[in-house]
Amino acid sequence: MAVYTDVGDEDLAAFIADYDIGELVSFKGIAEGVENSNFLLRTTAASFILTLYEKRVNEAELPFFIGLMQHLAGRGINCPTPVRARSGAALGRLAGRPAAIVTFLDGVSVRRPRLPHCAQLGVALADLHAAGADFAVHRTNALSLPGWRPLFERSADRADEVQPGLAAEIDAELGRLEAEWPKALPAGVIHADLFPDNVFFLGDDLSGLIDFYFACNDFLAYDLVICLNAWCFETDLQFNVTKARALIAGYESRRPLTPGERAALPLLARGAAMRFLLSRLYDWLNVPPGALVTPKDPIEYLRKLRFHQRVTGVGAYGMTP
Amino acid sequence: MAVYTDVGDEDLAAFIADYDIGELVSFKGIAEGVENSNFLLRTTAASFILTLYEKRVNEAELPFFIGLMQHLAGRGINCPTPVRARSGAALGRLAGRPAAIVTFLDGVSVRRPRLPHCAQLGVALADLHAAGADFAVHRTNALSLPGWRPLFERSADRADEVQPGLAAEIDAELGRLEAEWPKALPAGVIHADLFPDNVFFLGDDLSGLIDFYFACNDFLAYDLVICLNAWCFETDLQFNVTKARALIAGYESRRPLTPGERAALPLLARGAAMRFLLSRLYDWLNVPPGALVTPKDPIEYLRKLRFHQRVTGVGAYGMTP
Repeated sequence: MAVYTDVGDEDLAAFIADYDIGELVSFKGIAEGVENSNFLLRTTAASFILTLYEKRVNEAELPFFIGLMQHLAGRGINCPTPVRARSGAALGRLAGRPAAIVTFLDGVSVRRPRLPHCAQLGVALADLHAAGADFAVHRTNALSLPGWRPLFERSADRADEVQPGLAAEIDAELGRLEAEWPKALPAGVIHADLFPDNVFFLGDDLSGLIDFYFACNDFLAYDLVICLNAWCFETDLQFNVTKARALIAGYESRRPLTPGERAALPLLARGAAMRFLLSRLYDWLNVPPGALVTPKDPIEYLRKLRFHQRVTGVGAYGMTP
Repeated sequence: MAVYTDVGDEDLAAFIADYDIGELVSFKGIAEGVENSNFLLRTTAASFILTLYEKRVNEAELPFFIGLMQHLAGRGINCPTPVRARSGAALGRLAGRPAAIVTFLDGVSVRRPRLPHCAQLGVALADLHAAGADFAVHRTNALSLPGWRPLFERSADRADEVQPGLAAEIDAELGRLEAEWPKALPAGVIHADLFPDNVFFLGDDLSGLIDFYFACNDFLAYDLVICLNAWCFETDLQFNVTKARALIAGYESRRPLTPGERAALPLLARGAAMRFLLSRLYDWLNVPPGALVTPKDPIEYLRKLRFHQRVTGVGAYGMTP
């Protein structure tokens, strides 16, 4: 939830005058995204989202994100599409911050995904990977294996405040991940944060994907297990193998996993659980003064990690071994 | 800025199924209102605002607010209009809270009002007072004269932290207001919080009034001086007599002030400044943990109060004495 920067009507009017998007009808800050300020902008032509990129975002990376959304939209992916100003630029400046206008996507995110949601997510994820295959810009995943230990070290001395023994457990698992992490698997542009909040449905039909600000280059199957962790555990943290089967089958209906990917899935899933465990642990221990949102529970991802540690093969994910 | 309560898609779907407003297309928390959770709700039919009333709102008062908006809309005022469920009720329950759906108003609030904005505000305020004249429900203004000293007493011992001598200055002014406050003036339903945030314009035309959650019964001219204080001082706190003249002339084009109201204006304006000085002082000294918003500077209203203390007649407001 956000809206950090206040935008005055005169600044806004001057900004949108550079775009061919009609006359301003309404403008409201919306509670979407945690890193940036987002506004719903309605004009006589359509609805848009105006994003102001706040200080936590690396300005040098914005062309990657903007370019990726343009690229994916051009390949038929339903994602926010950056709107170009009359100058041709899709990235402008408003209230002292980098700013972009993107198209508004209809749809509502689901809190408790059901089977059809998981199946469609799998299809959409594979389509996203296919559409990103020829995107020329590269962005390293700062939250993959090489980033985990440095992130852990920022929380290590206080991790046991959250749960006794947590620091040792993470340290041991990081050692195993560092030893066993795959060196080569099919790679490309991944979303890297495709939680239910970032997937819209209209009725039961998937209508779009949003929030590409963690997108990067990494193993494609790593994106799939991020989804597995985010969509296929019930609220009591029981793993729902039927949802996993639906998700993976949806994905494989467009792109069958390679034998190497299949074999690596449990390990990748442990890594994906570790990534969110570590970022949540850090956020849990470092709630900024003024935060309106309760940080998410890191232990949820510890339990998901432990589930995957016990997995002995892809049968646990509903796949034919 | 708000959105305190998270609403799940299933709860929302069940809630709106009771309304004849089309199919859900989009749903986003918006940063509007400081007391309640607000969501922009788009359906296949139209856009709406869904409000969940949070704990700071007295549930017993909701029928007043809902009924008032219905009444005013029925009299042609452009304000959010509560939408009735099929049962006929305009107030429902969602996520454990009282909830209402109101129509969406187009328009944008202006940060730096200009003369035409002030003139139209005066007209709209008089129209609001006329439309409210036959509203049968009564709500006492908890933030008028009898409420000020109790509110002050909650900040008195710390007021000098904000500015040395502030407590004594407020105490003395409260004494004068208590001695001189008018006993009888034309009264009725007032908005009581018609700051620029709560007035929408489309281009230069006033398109609607929002946020009736301070509305109450009080002197009509008190509403006018709340606007005078909120709209007619420049950002450097210089009083702009031309804007004041435009505001009051706009108001009087629909309802001329009585001689008693004219004579009372400076005193009423001091009272209106005191009311916001006191609430801002309290908020300044009691920032809740987790607040995302910087509280508004109480000293702004001290300076407005002092301006009106020096006023010797309505000529200072651009009126013919």
